[in-house]
Amino acid sequence: MAELVEVTDPDDPRLRDYRDLRDVQLRKDLEAEHGLFLAEGEKVVRRALESGFDARSFLMAPRWLDGLADVLDRSGAPCYVLSEQLAEQVTGFHVHRGALASLERRPLPSVESVLAGARSVLVLEDVVDHTNVGAILRSGAALGFDAALLAPRCADPLYRRAIKVSMGAVFTLPWTRLPEWYDALPDLSARGFTTVALTLAPDAVPVEEAVAGLDKVALVLGSEGHGLSERWQESADRRAIIPMHEGIDSLNVAAASAVACYVTARR
Amino acid sequence: MAELVEVTDPDDPRLRDYRDLRDVQLRKDLEAEHGLFLAEGEKVVRRALESGFDARSFLMAPRWLDGLADVLDRSGAPCYVLSEQLAEQVTGFHVHRGALASLERRPLPSVESVLAGARSVLVLEDVVDHTNVGAILRSGAALGFDAALLAPRCADPLYRRAIKVSMGAVFTLPWTRLPEWYDALPDLSARGFTTVALTLAPDAVPVEEAVAGLDKVALVLGSEGHGLSERWQESADRRAIIPMHEGIDSLNVAAASAVACYVTARR
Ligand SMILES: C[S@@+](CC[C@H](N)C(=O)[O-])C[C@H]1O[C@@H](n2cnc3c(N)ncnc32)[C@H](O)[C@@H]1O
Ligand SMILES: C[S@@+](CC[C@H](N)C(=O)[O-])C[C@H]1O[C@@H](n2cnc3c(N)ncnc32)[C@H](O)[C@@H]1O
Repeated sequence: MAELVEVTDPDDPRLRDYRDLRDVQLRKDLEAEHGLFLAEGEKVVRRALESGFDARSFLMAPRWLDGLADVLDRSGAPCYVLSEQLAEQVTGFHVHRGALASLERRPLPSVESVLAGARSVLVLEDVVDHTNVGAILRSGAALGFDAALLAPRCADPLYRRAIKVSMGAVFTLPWTRLPEWYDALPDLSARGFTTVALTLAPDAVPVEEAVAGLDKVALVLGSEGHGLSERWQESADRRAIIPMHEGIDSLNVAAASAVACYVTARR
Repeated sequence: MAELVEVTDPDDPRLRDYRDLRDVQLRKDLEAEHGLFLAEGEKVVRRALESGFDARSFLMAPRWLDGLADVLDRSGAPCYVLSEQLAEQVTGFHVHRGALASLERRPLPSVESVLAGARSVLVLEDVVDHTNVGAILRSGAALGFDAALLAPRCADPLYRRAIKVSMGAVFTLPWTRLPEWYDALPDLSARGFTTVALTLAPDAVPVEEAVAGLDKVALVLGSEGHGLSERWQESADRRAIIPMHEGIDSLNVAAASAVACYVTARR
């Protein structure tokens, strides 16, 4: 069971996994270097462990210990216990969901294994906002999608905020990085998927029509700012739009993906 | 045309509308007290003015002046010009979209006038996250909804972050606050709307079925944490669910609203 370690010094080096959680750049570097990621909140921490991720350590105020007692019981990692005030000093923000865990990343699975048996797949090009990545994976899992593939520059689903917004769907929905960007969509077509690019391009057909009757489908979504690259729009098998009221530029990418997943799930 | 006023002192009292934009509580108090709200980014500032809101002032670094020259030309409010570094000192964050404007709030319209001619309406109970409120109004406007009604405790659509996420939909989609919470849904029914509560309640029917063939519809969405209140669930004409894959708790409220609006728009 996790050893409870009381900590009173915010500079205690054992807390280094939890430093400055608001500093996105610092966190990216630190997490990449040490192969770790952070989970926040009792529910999410629990789901991470239940999904088989190994804890490096836990950090929480005393009042959160009871709720996670069973989880701590089953882990060999130390649990650093400190006041909420101290936790705030270490992390740089008010940890209102209480419990944090630092977990070991695992090697990413192969595209092959992520796609095994999948019939509906999400493909994200350069979605850069962690909130959007988390929301998209949550909707995909909820609406019956089987897997997700991420372009090399898409934001990290194991970033704390993405995990939180996904409500842990990043732990259960199979996903991986595409090793290569340029031929990613033709490669998927070669594996039997019809790739459907969600886009505002003038030749896009309504999404309901684009997916009607298809067997294996890959729904492809683009970046918040500039949408899908020319290359991905051109190399997709179909281009589809969610029809919008006139005068509106676009839907938020997470909203677009929820609608497209819903429609595609009932194709 | 807007007078350009160079500012070199971050404590200049003329900049007080722009102080500490990250401090949500302080901003709420300040904005309520002075009846103002802030718009951020060239596109959003432009839309606010085009929608008829009056500027109290503008604040921007020199390089943003050209892009907004036409907007400034048509306004009588002062434009405070300062370095990006100084802007950061005043606002408390890096203003990467450059232009800010402080605008006058207007009296909220009556429920009567917001509903005039409307056939599809969104009703938000206690959606507390500004990002969600903005995203919901954006999706509603994009997917053909005519208006939105907000319960007394729903988050403010004119909060900077909500405006930004809505891409200005908060300026164009008619919306107002419900004066009263308890009988809000029966009141809407009395006005000829079928109120459809989006909920995970066990007696909820699939949303497609719930809205099929209806004329005037009000889609009702609940809080991020606890969902819709008992009262609103019970006083709605119908309860509807977006069917989900097993093992998933819920959709994010903005994703749920996008799907529900899409389905309802094609009823
Ligand atoms: C905010 S949009 C990007 C808008 C960008 N200005 C463009 O022209 O593509 C982000 C992504 O959401 C998806 N999207 C948003 N609205 C859509 C719609 N109405 N139909 C299809 N896809 C949409 C697309 O995949 C797009 O790349
Ligand atoms: C995150 S959910 C709240 C979940 C909350 N635990 C509950 O049991 O209602 C926020 C709101 O989104 C809407 N919502 C989310 N998923 C939904 C679904 N699958 N069907 C219908 N409404 C849903 C509901 O209006 C709900 O009040």
